[in-house]
Amino acid sequence: MAIIPIIGSGMMGSAIGMPAAANGHEVRLVGTPLDTEIIRQAQESGYHITLKRPLPSAYRYYQFDQVREALSGASAVVCGVSSFGLDWFLENALPLIPDELPVLMVTKGMLDQEDGSLISYPEYYKEHFPNKHLNGVGGPCTSYELADRDPTQVAFCGWNIAELRFLKSLFATDWYHVSLSTDVRGVECAVAMKNAYALAVTLAVGLAEKRDGREGAVHYNSQAALFGQSVREMQRLLTLCGGGPENIIYGAGDLYVTVFGGRTRFIGTLLGRGMSYEAAMEKLKGVTLESVVIAERTGRAVHRLIESGKVAPDRFPLLLHVYDILKNGASADNIPWSAFETETAH
Amino acid sequence: MAIIPIIGSGMMGSAIGMPAAANGHEVRLVGTPLDTEIIRQAQESGYHITLKRPLPSAYRYYQFDQVREALSGASAVVCGVSSFGLDWFLENALPLIPDELPVLMVTKGMLDQEDGSLISYPEYYKEHFPNKHLNGVGGPCTSYELADRDPTQVAFCGWNIAELRFLKSLFATDWYHVSLSTDVRGVECAVAMKNAYALAVTLAVGLAEKRDGREGAVHYNSQAALFGQSVREMQRLLTLCGGGPENIIYGAGDLYVTVFGGRTRFIGTLLGRGMSYEAAMEKLKGVTLESVVIAERTGRAVHRLIESGKVAPDRFPLLLHVYDILKNGASADNIPWSAFETETAH
Repeated sequence: MAIIPIIGSGMMGSAIGMPAAANGHEVRLVGTPLDTEIIRQAQESGYHITLKRPLPSAYRYYQFDQVREALSGASAVVCGVSSFGLDWFLENALPLIPDELPVLMVTKGMLDQEDGSLISYPEYYKEHFPNKHLNGVGGPCTSYELADRDPTQVAFCGWNIAELRFLKSLFATDWYHVSLSTDVRGVECAVAMKNAYALAVTLAVGLAEKRDGREGAVHYNSQAALFGQSVREMQRLLTLCGGGPENIIYGAGDLYVTVFGGRTRFIGTLLGRGMSYEAAMEKLKGVTLESVVIAERTGRAVHRLIESGKVAPDRFPLLLHVYDILKNGASADNIPWSAFETETAH
Repeated sequence: MAIIPIIGSGMMGSAIGMPAAANGHEVRLVGTPLDTEIIRQAQESGYHITLKRPLPSAYRYYQFDQVREALSGASAVVCGVSSFGLDWFLENALPLIPDELPVLMVTKGMLDQEDGSLISYPEYYKEHFPNKHLNGVGGPCTSYELADRDPTQVAFCGWNIAELRFLKSLFATDWYHVSLSTDVRGVECAVAMKNAYALAVTLAVGLAEKRDGREGAVHYNSQAALFGQSVREMQRLLTLCGGGPENIIYGAGDLYVTVFGGRTRFIGTLLGRGMSYEAAMEKLKGVTLESVVIAERTGRAVHRLIESGKVAPDRFPLLLHVYDILKNGASADNIPWSAFETETAH
């Protein structure tokens, strides 16, 4: 039996411990200062108030001031915060984790640098703590379904294949399937980008609603066109990032899911209907979405690369259209359809 | 103004003339012997009884015994039959079309050869009539939405880029966007394969219904896992066929749409619930689906390539699982999840 502390007790942080608990390991769920109530109620009743599920009996609960106790005897540690907790974790939790312990990050996203390059979160942490053993989880996985033991397929990525195999041995079950890759940039980039492109695909949902009303017929041709263009641009971004093209499967699978529902679809649909980004944000009560953050960062990176001549200006028309809607008040109406047309002659 | 006969007046054949009519061309809709009633009623009222739309006033109507008259003065001809009319068109219509006229086929599919290779329909016609000017249409496009002028993005493929540009000049509008490619095999293969994989992805819908009931929660992790694996295997099939990998965007966009609805989703869901293929076919009243035909042909081709040592046995686990369900009575339950796990170490 291994001891696995999870720091960050949001929905995904809390759910990823479940396959490990099913494998007989002790999971120690540690709340961030924002999670105090989640932990308090879990201690009281064993119930997770945002995941809305009872937690396994192998779970133990800790407030963040007990993190040192939680880390004692650990075999591996999960970084369970969302991308909005990225720097909090870097400053407050990562320094407490012994260098030799494998860390598995559920945090998804990318950061853009001054020169337009994009790096993953495990790489960002590694810049600050080169000796830490950092790894990431990518792939389509909703926390609810993971908690419900639905068949799920993810990828663990990191720099050391032996360490990845060890992590897989802790977490993999016959319903939580784990691929392994040392292409950290590729896996993380594919998974992060789909957030920006989920916004793009759902613009077509709003455009159709604007035309036919919300109860109008389904409109798949336009969604499929944007989906295809998204796959094309994600492949280009993967290459640009230095990730392997085979990682597109994580981006495409994850895009397929993100388009179905949730807040990213909601805001993409509002923008597609013609609402300004500011008005759409009011509907979301000012909650910033990771998808918007990723679209802004990726769009900014591509603009910088175009300015410096490293990328041709016509390679990312859909991404830059989304960026224009978010940052420059452009109308979703003007989807640059013609820019998606290609001519391939051998 | 050009004259464009369309032979085969089913839904897609009839809809693809609409952008050409919008461009001011004369469209001559010619029914096959199965379309007699469609043509008769269109002649009477200008209404298409299966597309359920009025047809443009630029349309003229012909029964098949008037095909020679319809072809007179034509600038290009559309082959508007479905894959079940492939050989009928080859024997009865294609010989009547002058060699120099560009033919645009909406017929989607692939044929497998004795040696396990897969060829496209334009190639199949070319084997019989090497001097005909054959071209195909690929990409996600439902006939209803095309008729309703929803934004749509397709690819025309053929061997001559100048001819493709001419066809584009006839059909492209600001709602019907056309890419061009001389990679006939690549475009057609990507588009055909998605039918087999749409069956595969929708197995997860049925598996979830079996578990939670038809009114149960949505289950996206498993659909997304199968979607990602489908993209991976479609890329491999593209390479195997000799098609360019960039064509995956047509397969992925089209897969996204096919999974949403229609008869392929229906049968995939039934199989996923555990129904045998025979029982599922009864629910469909014995109507054979193109997706089933493609899955059988592609699966048979891959089996032959594995037997002859040209393909490793572990490259297409999802396709072969679908093939086993259709041909060998295998249960959809045993989705080979572990076979989808990969290990990539650089």
